[in-house]
Amino acid sequence: MEKIKVGVLGASGYTGADLMRLALRHPAIELTVLTANSHAGKPVKDVFKHFSHVTLPDLIAIDEADWKNVDAVFCGLPHGTTQAITKQIFQTHPNVKIIDMSADFRLRDPVAYKEWYGLDHVATEIQPEAVYGLTELYRDEIVNARLIACPGCYPTAVLLSLVPLAREGLVDATDLVIDAKSGVSGAGRGLKENTLFCEAGEGLAPYAVGKHRHMAEIEQEIGRAAGLDGLRVNFTPHLIPMSRGELTTSYVRMKNGASAADLKEVLASTYAEDPFVTLLEGEALPQTQMVRGSNYVAMNVIPDRIAGRAIVISTLDNLVKGSAGQALQNFNLAYGLDETLGLEQLPLFP
Amino acid sequence: MEKIKVGVLGASGYTGADLMRLALRHPAIELTVLTANSHAGKPVKDVFKHFSHVTLPDLIAIDEADWKNVDAVFCGLPHGTTQAITKQIFQTHPNVKIIDMSADFRLRDPVAYKEWYGLDHVATEIQPEAVYGLTELYRDEIVNARLIACPGCYPTAVLLSLVPLAREGLVDATDLVIDAKSGVSGAGRGLKENTLFCEAGEGLAPYAVGKHRHMAEIEQEIGRAAGLDGLRVNFTPHLIPMSRGELTTSYVRMKNGASAADLKEVLASTYAEDPFVTLLEGEALPQTQMVRGSNYVAMNVIPDRIAGRAIVISTLDNLVKGSAGQALQNFNLAYGLDETLGLEQLPLFP
Amino acid sequence: MEKIKVGVLGASGYTGADLMRLALRHPAIELTVLTANSHAGKPVKDVFKHFSHVTLPDLIAIDEADWKNVDAVFCGLPHGTTQAITKQIFQTHPNVKIIDMSADFRLRDPVAYKEWYGLDHVATEIQPEAVYGLTELYRDEIVNARLIACPGCYPTAVLLSLVPLAREGLVDATDLVIDAKSGVSGAGRGLKENTLFCEAGEGLAPYAVGKHRHMAEIEQEIGRAAGLDGLRVNFTPHLIPMSRGELTTSYVRMKNGASAADLKEVLASTYAEDPFVTLLEGEALPQTQMVRGSNYVAMNVIPDRIAGRAIVISTLDNLVKGSAGQALQNFNLAYGLDETLGLEQLPLFP
Amino acid sequence: MEKIKVGVLGASGYTGADLMRLALRHPAIELTVLTANSHAGKPVKDVFKHFSHVTLPDLIAIDEADWKNVDAVFCGLPHGTTQAITKQIFQTHPNVKIIDMSADFRLRDPVAYKEWYGLDHVATEIQPEAVYGLTELYRDEIVNARLIACPGCYPTAVLLSLVPLAREGLVDATDLVIDAKSGVSGAGRGLKENTLFCEAGEGLAPYAVGKHRHMAEIEQEIGRAAGLDGLRVNFTPHLIPMSRGELTTSYVRMKNGASAADLKEVLASTYAEDPFVTLLEGEALPQTQMVRGSNYVAMNVIPDRIAGRAIVISTLDNLVKGSAGQALQNFNLAYGLDETLGLEQLPLFP
Repeated sequence: MEKIKVGVLGASGYTGADLMRLALRHPAIELTVLTANSHAGKPVKDVFKHFSHVTLPDLIAIDEADWKNVDAVFCGLPHGTTQAITKQIFQTHPNVKIIDMSADFRLRDPVAYKEWYGLDHVATEIQPEAVYGLTELYRDEIVNARLIACPGCYPTAVLLSLVPLAREGLVDATDLVIDAKSGVSGAGRGLKENTLFCEAGEGLAPYAVGKHRHMAEIEQEIGRAAGLDGLRVNFTPHLIPMSRGELTTSYVRMKNGASAADLKEVLASTYAEDPFVTLLEGEALPQTQMVRGSNYVAMNVIPDRIAGRAIVISTLDNLVKGSAGQALQNFNLAYGLDETLGLEQLPLFP
Repeated sequence: MEKIKVGVLGASGYTGADLMRLALRHPAIELTVLTANSHAGKPVKDVFKHFSHVTLPDLIAIDEADWKNVDAVFCGLPHGTTQAITKQIFQTHPNVKIIDMSADFRLRDPVAYKEWYGLDHVATEIQPEAVYGLTELYRDEIVNARLIACPGCYPTAVLLSLVPLAREGLVDATDLVIDAKSGVSGAGRGLKENTLFCEAGEGLAPYAVGKHRHMAEIEQEIGRAAGLDGLRVNFTPHLIPMSRGELTTSYVRMKNGASAADLKEVLASTYAEDPFVTLLEGEALPQTQMVRGSNYVAMNVIPDRIAGRAIVISTLDNLVKGSAGQALQNFNLAYGLDETLGLEQLPLFP
Repeated sequence: MEKIKVGVLGASGYTGADLMRLALRHPAIELTVLTANSHAGKPVKDVFKHFSHVTLPDLIAIDEADWKNVDAVFCGLPHGTTQAITKQIFQTHPNVKIIDMSADFRLRDPVAYKEWYGLDHVATEIQPEAVYGLTELYRDEIVNARLIACPGCYPTAVLLSLVPLAREGLVDATDLVIDAKSGVSGAGRGLKENTLFCEAGEGLAPYAVGKHRHMAEIEQEIGRAAGLDGLRVNFTPHLIPMSRGELTTSYVRMKNGASAADLKEVLASTYAEDPFVTLLEGEALPQTQMVRGSNYVAMNVIPDRIAGRAIVISTLDNLVKGSAGQALQNFNLAYGLDETLGLEQLPLFP
Repeated sequence: MEKIKVGVLGASGYTGADLMRLALRHPAIELTVLTANSHAGKPVKDVFKHFSHVTLPDLIAIDEADWKNVDAVFCGLPHGTTQAITKQIFQTHPNVKIIDMSADFRLRDPVAYKEWYGLDHVATEIQPEAVYGLTELYRDEIVNARLIACPGCYPTAVLLSLVPLAREGLVDATDLVIDAKSGVSGAGRGLKENTLFCEAGEGLAPYAVGKHRHMAEIEQEIGRAAGLDGLRVNFTPHLIPMSRGELTTSYVRMKNGASAADLKEVLASTYAEDPFVTLLEGEALPQTQMVRGSNYVAMNVIPDRIAGRAIVISTLDNLVKGSAGQALQNFNLAYGLDETLGLEQLPLFP
């Protein structure tokens, strides 16, 4: 299989690492450029010891990258840094496709970007061509996109399970309570006290209550699905003492006489052909153990004890389907490859 | 200090163990009878190695217990086994006080007991004298009680944070969404596949969705507070990969023009004098790391992004305030001792 | 690629599960028979929820297996149960190859088997054809074997790192101290109190000190390498609060003027061509995070502070290279396939 | 009970926190000065949320401390910073007693300090009066000391179990292999990549092999006990995915015809009267779960499979007996209080 030359920007973070893990075994990818400014000059295995077994290009600074040697770029940079580099790459190498795992192009409205991220959007002219990379719901756009803004990990879990319901008018989008739980890798590899083993271990903590930035994507996309402007949802994340995995428990009020079975039926028909979405049978409950290390999403709808309400549960691995895996899935689509290529790994349990 | 002779029934379970841990350092307790039918005849340290440092009576079968040698009994037996033994003890030793950590006397209505636990209530004649042992809210009854039915761990966290709000009519009791998270010790020491290290570790799983038995207590007590019969709440528990700790995130719709600040004010005045309830300042978020190994409850009210809603978060150690600690707190009250006796330990962190 | 029909005996245990995880993505394997006596009749996903995404034959009892539909058998049964079934399969289907992950054929001497496992060896007539399946050291025999006795997880880590040194006479085989650490999955999926989350979590415990059965294999193979009968080694395992991963720290006294560098040189030349053995550079220290979920072994030799001594550290994933992965590696060899087929997955980190 | 005014220097680290946890419930202590330069001006509960339930003086910078308001000082500062402040305090307040939990006064020889810590010793004139605060072995000196250099966590576990054996000539001090395992809190609260939850979790890593600074104390004290200069031992630490707890597995060669039973007998007689040292019965194996959160040490001696060798296992909580608890034990002795005051807490399990 002919190789596509791939660059990974931000290769020293967890999403960058998981992208490399998958890309190294992808039959159509050759990793040619790996950047990590703070580790420039080092072998990757000095930064990620689990790559001691393989050969990779050394890490370089982003301004040392030779873009001629790159057909596609995966960005795993912090938000606020991707817009400028994307604009710059497109100016000199307009045929490169960029699959961005940061938040920089997810919000369609630059004003919202400024509001949530506190930064001016510096590439507003290319924002319109950014496709929101929630694969299963935007597949057609992704196929032809040059700039793919992969969703956040939480939004992926939430939107895959709620957008079809909102679109069909089966749930009241103005009364959504989304209780979210994530493993610690979702907080990234940066040094923070609350992600130390001794602080995050053997304990459970809500965080960013009412303020988490992923809320902006969720409101944007559910609002679009429900045809509502300025939608507000409850979204309350919790930090869980595990490395990987994310689970969202969404409490919905049904509309138009819908039942939990109706909700499930909509999800079933939406994802009937999707290789990575598993709608569980009966009242089987999603749990992160079902998806660890894989690109699968598992979901289900459970009737609530309160009449007229239902519970929609969704789980994924935040670094795979929630980030690097979905990015690779989008890459496959954008390059005309089988969507599952390089993503066939089954979950690791235990 | 003169010693009260104490028996612990079910001393080989986690709640029994934590009761012993605390009782051993309680200045007014002498442990005289420890039962564990399946381990009868063994030294306690064979069953709980962390008691290798102390001297305790050997475990005996419950029918070997010499009730004459017991002033007070803590029951840490499985539900369905406590009613008969309680009745029996009271018949021959009516002055013994029984502090029950099981579910057997928590539900005021024997019909509800049968509905939720699938068993006939076999001590209906003494059920009326059982006091629901949620210390802070039933202190006056506990002082004079002979039979104290300590609440479940989840109900303790939920009710302490919601009952005052329901009682004051500040929240809509019919629209409560309670997302609950618990460490694995809440599932007890019985051998079950889902509580093996390899199954529960590095993963997160909802369970008993819409069916958890603690829901019965929650509905009973919030219903009483709100003056509503047949109340139904949403209560959705999740198993978290940690041993101890519990956190409930309750999503409430406010009534009568109440604000989050009003809710907080009610909690502040309710618990102003309570030594174990900590209402956090500002928008500080409760987390289980604040209470591990201690009898404290930490709570707070956070405004929701959706107008008219608030988020009430409550956390405790399920084995201490959620079980053995609260039992001991009730014991102190029932015997006229300082409520904090033997419970002064600060949380263990990290 | 033409498919080889594969049966997995003991498919409800962790090694069986990991074998299925890998086999499902192996291009030359079709899983046709999956047995689990205690779960016969169930879909696999009822027993292992992480297989909810794939289609597999239902579990059956072992005596329901149709051996005509099987070319190769992987045994993940408890020790003591594999000898009889192996003998039986060979009698009726002599061309089936059996790759055994249990301990039943590892010990060359049936007397030793009885001594360590407390059971009579019931297939002594086929024991001689069993090849000890430590791939890198017995590759030539494995290629032609019909019965492959895959080593235990600990022995794999220990022997790969020590046998070459003992064979070359660089270490004193009579003075080996092997301190071993394993994740909890090494104890299997059986229900035992010490592998409950609350017992094994947040704690560390030595076990089976001086008595662990893997010692028998270690002594057998190092004895052979060193040319010593009745060799005794120190082997002290510890249970570590993680699911997967194993690390052995072997303290060796060097002989014949050897230095740590000499030891490393021998390992380097032994494994120069081996795809799954990584000898780390310089004094980089092996850690289980380097190998999780993969078939790699990482090792290194570090000079000791005490003159004349060295420290040999080796790490692997106990369920992969320590069991199912090595079994599949042996399968590949036995069927003339590329040794790495189906085993290319990189370690999962974090 | 009259209160002794206590200052804690370095109150924002884990040892400082555990000291405060215990001191707050100590009947003879009033905490008057708490320093933490990088957090000066903050309430303690902003730095350690588990102190949200109690009232404490705010954190101040060390040069803001009013030493007149302090009778005793506990130092939880990083090594290299304690010598100067100790000297300074003694100059102006010679009656203050200093209990140092850092490494600054542990090594009797300032040359060794320089060699191991890379710093000149700047208080050599007071080094001679420093007592090595291994309570059980130096109790008489501690009673009268003004400067107590509490041992490191590893040395406490190792020395309590090996010094009596070396002193009696029952083990060959020149052939000691000490395999040590510690929870992550031993690495402190500083921000380091390898102590992030995602790096340390679900994995096991040796570190500082042949170089760990605690080796200096171990060699110093075992050398003294055995009457050997320049002793070298093997000491190999491993980082374990748990917050608290430490276990050392020491492999010893016996001398003078000693048996494992003889070793055990020596330990039994050495610690017969010691409230915090538990010699386990029979072949019961120490495990960290026996001591978590408490000041106990549990140990045992197990015969090795190799003739003439034995295995000595010792476990403690690195933050309690390994640091803050032992410091408090020494404080009690130095102030003529009951040695167990404030340290009565039993281990927390699970």
